[in-house]
Amino acid sequence: MVGTYAGKDRETGEMTQGGYSKSVVVREEFVLSIPENLDLSRVAPLLCAGITTYSPLHKWGVKKGSRVAVVGLGGLGHMAVKNAVAMGAIVTVVGRSESKKEDAVKLGAQHYLVSTNDDEMKKSLSAFDVIIDTVPVKHDLSIYTPLLDIDGALIIVGQVGPVDELNTVPLLMGRRQVAGSLIGGIAETQQMLDFCGENNVLPECEMINIDEINSAYERMEKSDVRYRFGIDMESLSA
Amino acid sequence: MVGTYAGKDRETGEMTQGGYSKSVVVREEFVLSIPENLDLSRVAPLLCAGITTYSPLHKWGVKKGSRVAVVGLGGLGHMAVKNAVAMGAIVTVVGRSESKKEDAVKLGAQHYLVSTNDDEMKKSLSAFDVIIDTVPVKHDLSIYTPLLDIDGALIIVGQVGPVDELNTVPLLMGRRQVAGSLIGGIAETQQMLDFCGENNVLPECEMINIDEINSAYERMEKSDVRYRFGIDMESLSA
Repeated sequence: MVGTYAGKDRETGEMTQGGYSKSVVVREEFVLSIPENLDLSRVAPLLCAGITTYSPLHKWGVKKGSRVAVVGLGGLGHMAVKNAVAMGAIVTVVGRSESKKEDAVKLGAQHYLVSTNDDEMKKSLSAFDVIIDTVPVKHDLSIYTPLLDIDGALIIVGQVGPVDELNTVPLLMGRRQVAGSLIGGIAETQQMLDFCGENNVLPECEMINIDEINSAYERMEKSDVRYRFGIDMESLSA
Repeated sequence: MVGTYAGKDRETGEMTQGGYSKSVVVREEFVLSIPENLDLSRVAPLLCAGITTYSPLHKWGVKKGSRVAVVGLGGLGHMAVKNAVAMGAIVTVVGRSESKKEDAVKLGAQHYLVSTNDDEMKKSLSAFDVIIDTVPVKHDLSIYTPLLDIDGALIIVGQVGPVDELNTVPLLMGRRQVAGSLIGGIAETQQMLDFCGENNVLPECEMINIDEINSAYERMEKSDVRYRFGIDMESLSA
């Protein structure tokens, strides 16, 4: 169930509490059906990180054998890996150091590429059909665009705002693309939920009670979460 | 006929003269067939500006009714207009002032948009399926990307090198793309020549004799050419 947070209640004029509520009123066409086999305690992040990464993978035609790279392994990145693996892609996680290699493999990635290793990067030129770029800060895309094969696409799902000066040479030379993608519509979100049900795709998720939310926030700021928190709304009544 | 300029002759070791020759030796698979109805004095630029603009229009599926914008109206831009018009697209030329409006209309464009006019630009938000960006210097793409509709593509064919910091917001919000494209392969070049033959697409071209090449170069530097020079190679013998 989805409700607006910090909106204005149509009747009382008070601030709406969105999902932080015991009950919400939702228009029927915005209600999604969650496949029965999915563990409810882990479903919530599918409606954000799940659809944000499923949508571009689906739109850019990722299928069995597609070569997909995922830049950054946080909440978005780990869902990009899981979705791409479930689609049958050969998945490579790109990180700045080896630190996330073990996690990448656990999540199902076949390869791990260290972007600060020039030799490894050279060997990966023109190696991918699709790159999902989850980096949430200003950065240099030109490190990654040469890794795309001809007609390949790098899709930004993390950074909202400027990225560095863009070098057009790798784009021109390989007819490569840079695109952006944001969440997804209701129809595609239902499609994603059904896909996750069929393939048992779920985020790595830690469930907390509502009274743990401040310490969870502090842990999130220290990147001390693998990879999302979910709040048990039953605990709101306690 | 295409030959390498400033290469090394395989037999004599001397510098090759490319097209600036009375005769050239070409491998059969690199020879193109020029439709008989095309005026030979105007065909040469098709093999550069023609294919450079035909290729992305073709690849991104431009057809009858597609909404195409062309940024910049020089050698590349005027061929982008002619090719897009021949494909049945509704074509808008985007310039910094009104100065090229008359030419744009003559070339077949239906609309002209002044990029320094904020009101006009606001009215053109989300108005195009494809933008062909022929600007050959560093510039800000973020002026143009909001003009694309959802899933629209801006394709850079002019600037080889950096463009300004890229704002990802218009990309994310409309799943818009920025891509690059460079000339085209032999098969697609033949396809383009056949297309130009069928639709009588030819560049605006001024033929000169070889002994006029220095003054032509000076005129080109002053943008005093509408839109390409062709050299009459017969004049090399004089």
